[in-house]
Amino acid sequence: MQEHADTQSSAPLRIGVAGLGNVGATLVRIIQKDGLELTRKLGRKLVVTAVCARSRSRDRGIETAELEWFDDPVALAKSDSIDLFVELIGGEDGPALAAVKAALEVGRPVVTANKALLARHGVALARIAEESGAQLGFEAAVAGGIPVIKTLREGLGSARIARVYGIMNGTCNYILTRMGNEGISFEECLRDAQKLGYAEADPTFDVGGFDTAHKLAILASLCFGCEIAPDEIFVEGITSISQADIKVAGDLGYKIKLLGIAQRSADGIEQRVHPTLVPKTSAIAGVDGVLNAVALETDHVHELLLAGPGAGGPPTASSVLSDILDIARGNRVPPLGVPTAELIPYRQAPMRAHQGGYYIRLNAKDIPGALASIASRMGAAGISLESVIQRPDLRVTDTGSDGSKTRTIVLLTHSTMEATVREALAQIASDGFIVGEPQLIRIETL
Amino acid sequence: MQEHADTQSSAPLRIGVAGLGNVGATLVRIIQKDGLELTRKLGRKLVVTAVCARSRSRDRGIETAELEWFDDPVALAKSDSIDLFVELIGGEDGPALAAVKAALEVGRPVVTANKALLARHGVALARIAEESGAQLGFEAAVAGGIPVIKTLREGLGSARIARVYGIMNGTCNYILTRMGNEGISFEECLRDAQKLGYAEADPTFDVGGFDTAHKLAILASLCFGCEIAPDEIFVEGITSISQADIKVAGDLGYKIKLLGIAQRSADGIEQRVHPTLVPKTSAIAGVDGVLNAVALETDHVHELLLAGPGAGGPPTASSVLSDILDIARGNRVPPLGVPTAELIPYRQAPMRAHQGGYYIRLNAKDIPGALASIASRMGAAGISLESVIQRPDLRVTDTGSDGSKTRTIVLLTHSTMEATVREALAQIASDGFIVGEPQLIRIETL
Repeated sequence: MQEHADTQSSAPLRIGVAGLGNVGATLVRIIQKDGLELTRKLGRKLVVTAVCARSRSRDRGIETAELEWFDDPVALAKSDSIDLFVELIGGEDGPALAAVKAALEVGRPVVTANKALLARHGVALARIAEESGAQLGFEAAVAGGIPVIKTLREGLGSARIARVYGIMNGTCNYILTRMGNEGISFEECLRDAQKLGYAEADPTFDVGGFDTAHKLAILASLCFGCEIAPDEIFVEGITSISQADIKVAGDLGYKIKLLGIAQRSADGIEQRVHPTLVPKTSAIAGVDGVLNAVALETDHVHELLLAGPGAGGPPTASSVLSDILDIARGNRVPPLGVPTAELIPYRQAPMRAHQGGYYIRLNAKDIPGALASIASRMGAAGISLESVIQRPDLRVTDTGSDGSKTRTIVLLTHSTMEATVREALAQIASDGFIVGEPQLIRIETL
Repeated sequence: MQEHADTQSSAPLRIGVAGLGNVGATLVRIIQKDGLELTRKLGRKLVVTAVCARSRSRDRGIETAELEWFDDPVALAKSDSIDLFVELIGGEDGPALAAVKAALEVGRPVVTANKALLARHGVALARIAEESGAQLGFEAAVAGGIPVIKTLREGLGSARIARVYGIMNGTCNYILTRMGNEGISFEECLRDAQKLGYAEADPTFDVGGFDTAHKLAILASLCFGCEIAPDEIFVEGITSISQADIKVAGDLGYKIKLLGIAQRSADGIEQRVHPTLVPKTSAIAGVDGVLNAVALETDHVHELLLAGPGAGGPPTASSVLSDILDIARGNRVPPLGVPTAELIPYRQAPMRAHQGGYYIRLNAKDIPGALASIASRMGAAGISLESVIQRPDLRVTDTGSDGSKTRTIVLLTHSTMEATVREALAQIASDGFIVGEPQLIRIETL
């Protein structure tokens, strides 16, 4: 408990940083450069005394003369030469997990930007932190520079949250924004995103929706006081979104965004990540490019929207630093908002019970009876249609796999149940009038 | 210092509430209703034990049986029967000031929603709080349910703020939104706002911009680490905004919003409240109706936008409660973000040195030479024009006071200095071709 006492004193706070990539190096630079300003604010000094990184020789624009170097992040985490451990290594297991655990176990406060680690081990780590009396900050883990963790843990009083949704992956939002503005394909946008450093060489983690799912799992726990359940999330990425989808959605007054959404329902908590039709007039529709945004719908506050940079060295380092400042002040809040013993088990609301509107794009064979089959199956299922659109310019493929000509039909349904829509689509497929898989995009009422 | 010790214990936190209007009654109801949930979160009980209000008999939907009633807020503030004092009386002086001072002087933490009090006496109150070791929370004082104070005091790490701007008065935003959507006059919108309870019988404080100025003064202090200077703010209200202004601005791609803006400039800090042309594509342009929003532009985080309800019982009470929870946890942060001794004096950047674009609407006499006079005076002043619009449908008044026919001319300037624009307008007036006062609205680059 020596470390805990140290964090409340007015002695300099000695910080150890593991991982000197973009965020880590930026953090060290800020603390070295703005030290005086921070001291003025805090009444105590912040000083990075030790670091751990693969290369000691790389020029990162930081002062290294007075730094103690570690090769092993666990050794740094446990070292008595630091009062606070910052984990910026990344990865849900391996050295990041080992080091964070080691620090918390000796009662040393930890700040991390690692969403995968939190999503996977957040409850276990919060429990260790509680037992040893250490603090655990992770503002930077969700939506980079947007203080959404602090807002959820501390800022909303007693407000009970009904739904949280957000754009939490800059890569996907960049791609969808450019597809919308410039009429170019997913593949072309992705290539540009890779060139600009917005997307990884293997983009699956981003464009497949998994990165958003990690962040959503953390938010859902904070919003609903439940355990973190990253494996219970329905996840669909953006790879199937075509120009036709963006164009028709636009004509109907919608934009397509990759949203992570968690909401209370009668059956439990729904957690889902999928491309979503959002009304152009909604605030979140205006969040474009690499920007992120999180909306919180509460009983008391109605809706709160936080928008800003979701990634990048300076915004992320700024969030890491806000956690460091809280710890330096001796301020404490349970890592997941409530003590871990008070977390309720996560009860998954099944996706087939999801209620909402649907955008459906079908390739129908260009023969008599096709539209009648589609319309009568939807009618029989009790699905009420808001719009039906068939236009020559929406043809996605001219011919089906069997060589027949096809035409593109888009349906917008009123609110219905996911299971009902899927059943109706299976029946439409069995009628033999459509070619290929239907495109199905959920509409969110905002 | 007995009270300070109490706030860090796990004993129930006894709360005294002065002022049981909408916000006060809602707060008491929430604490009474959600007590168990709050205890689960905090590990300690919150209980409202004492109140002070004019009428004891009015039905406010709260349990009154166990409440101790005070007639004098100062007596409540000083009473040893409470651990925390909540001031919801309102007013910048009088009983609110006396009670808050009394509580802080005996070391009792205070939470208030009173922007006028904070704008006027914030530094003095923060100093008393520092001396006695009491906390002072005022999340609800700016932008109701939006946690902008917490974000500025704690959430932005070391980020240095370059500009803060926001829509901080729901009455004005409601009026401007309806004028824009429905094409009706300021007067008609104001009457409706009054009917709906969004505007006071005497609306001057809201529509004159003074309410926004109070909030801006508080934000500017938190953003720039300077003393609060409510009297150094340039304030213009929205009463002169006509349908013609909204229409032309709309045609040119702008909306008109009442913004409070504070920014660093070479000359010091500019604080100004005025109707503003904002690009329709900007995030803040989408904040309509009674909603509020605050945007923070920092070196590190680029821009952060927080949008949500700026008033109303539940959102405001939720913000009051978030301050109460921080205090119940024993968390501490200097009221103005830095210790008062570290606040720098406020250095006002003069409005005449303001740089920006201008929208200018003139009533020119319908005689040869009018436009030439205007254009040559602007050119001679070195003011470059982005747009010049003269259309028959923009005629605001058909005849000048001298009976001559007039036509409306709108100019949009590129960025220039306020003093230069004012000088050019004075010269144009002296040429005798215009009738009445020119309308001048600043354009903000967002």
